[in-house]
Amino acid sequence: MANPTAAMLVIGDEILSGRTRDSNMFYLAGELAKHGIDLCEVRVVSDDATAIQAAVKALSDGFDHVFTSGGIGPTHDDITAENIAAAFDTPISVRDDARALLAAHYKTTGAVLNEARLRMARIPDGATLIDNPVSVAPGFTLGNVHVMAGVPAVFETMVASVLPTLTGGAPLLSQSLRIMRGEGEIADTLSQLAADYPDLSIGCYPFQKDGVFGASVVVRGVEGAQVDAAVTRLAREVEL
Amino acid sequence: MANPTAAMLVIGDEILSGRTRDSNMFYLAGELAKHGIDLCEVRVVSDDATAIQAAVKALSDGFDHVFTSGGIGPTHDDITAENIAAAFDTPISVRDDARALLAAHYKTTGAVLNEARLRMARIPDGATLIDNPVSVAPGFTLGNVHVMAGVPAVFETMVASVLPTLTGGAPLLSQSLRIMRGEGEIADTLSQLAADYPDLSIGCYPFQKDGVFGASVVVRGVEGAQVDAAVTRLAREVEL
Repeated sequence: MANPTAAMLVIGDEILSGRTRDSNMFYLAGELAKHGIDLCEVRVVSDDATAIQAAVKALSDGFDHVFTSGGIGPTHDDITAENIAAAFDTPISVRDDARALLAAHYKTTGAVLNEARLRMARIPDGATLIDNPVSVAPGFTLGNVHVMAGVPAVFETMVASVLPTLTGGAPLLSQSLRIMRGEGEIADTLSQLAADYPDLSIGCYPFQKDGVFGASVVVRGVEGAQVDAAVTRLAREVEL
Repeated sequence: MANPTAAMLVIGDEILSGRTRDSNMFYLAGELAKHGIDLCEVRVVSDDATAIQAAVKALSDGFDHVFTSGGIGPTHDDITAENIAAAFDTPISVRDDARALLAAHYKTTGAVLNEARLRMARIPDGATLIDNPVSVAPGFTLGNVHVMAGVPAVFETMVASVLPTLTGGAPLLSQSLRIMRGEGEIADTLSQLAADYPDLSIGCYPFQKDGVFGASVVVRGVEGAQVDAAVTRLAREVEL
């Protein structure tokens, strides 16, 4: 059976303007691969209502799961929650359980649960909260969309909360072979290998080291024995 | 007048599987900001014909420029060129000028210009070549789509070749202010500031340092005087 599919939606002007180097995509890609969920597409959009709604609708329709990062803080540029709700015609308001989490937290820090901070307790009707052990303000799951914070430490703990609740498939296994020849020399061999192993994904990534061209060939698949067999055959054919 | 708009399309299984951490998005975002072209959306898709064609068509329709990275090497998993051509119903074949570049290069290295390497000379009809001073195999521009390599060193030189040929707008200027207060405390001030300066983009990015919450506020805009005025007012209102 095919693995469940997923897409990621990164939301934030700071990524598109070049201010911030996104690290959540790489993190999520690795975690999903381990969990047997195939990450098929990522989109990055700005803090713009129309862009967020269009992207989340398209991705929610196209894939089993959507993971979003960014835009759920207390400031005016945090507009993710209301636009996820709007995309699915769902009302959104401050919810008691989310407010209670924040109230308890600010009680310990001495800060005031003011109107701005209360924005972080707005949860679309019918959503499930996602734990935030780092800074308390929760994410949420609405339908097949998991809405998480952009700050990497928070994003990562939220992913860790959500993933065990999702049915994964077979983890993607991979092996790689480093070949000290230009990829143009091994292209025919790889092409034949890919044709003979249609269930495997075979990628070739060139590099240059001390002036010599080489290629890393990565063989990915869910059947360990098949991955082994393909890598063994490749090693025999190109080497050595 | 509004700046030209752009989107980026990153093509490659290795990004979505978590093997490779993309760095081209961050690089391109920074270069476009300097050049006065607004990066509005990024998509990452796998080495899949349908996904590449759908994404490039959508982005080419929606934005002034599209920059792609990845999938133009000599191996079986390099399928970007033919799918960009297919997306625009344009024939593609080995072109003499591109072949000549490769032939001259391989003459110096002693390698053979075999069939696999000749794949890198396939250029859609009517496209313009993009220089590759690093490893010679060219990129190309077809319509408003600039097709470039995924290897960062090559991608970066290709961006450097293309950008001067495009009409830029006003470079995006930015100033930031580091405020040692939780973003929930300054949210009202920022919200009012954003309302009073509708032409500026004002972002707030929380951090935690030595257990204290702070926020970096980034003010972006094309009018330096306006950016200055907003930052000065913010500093006065939150501090200090």
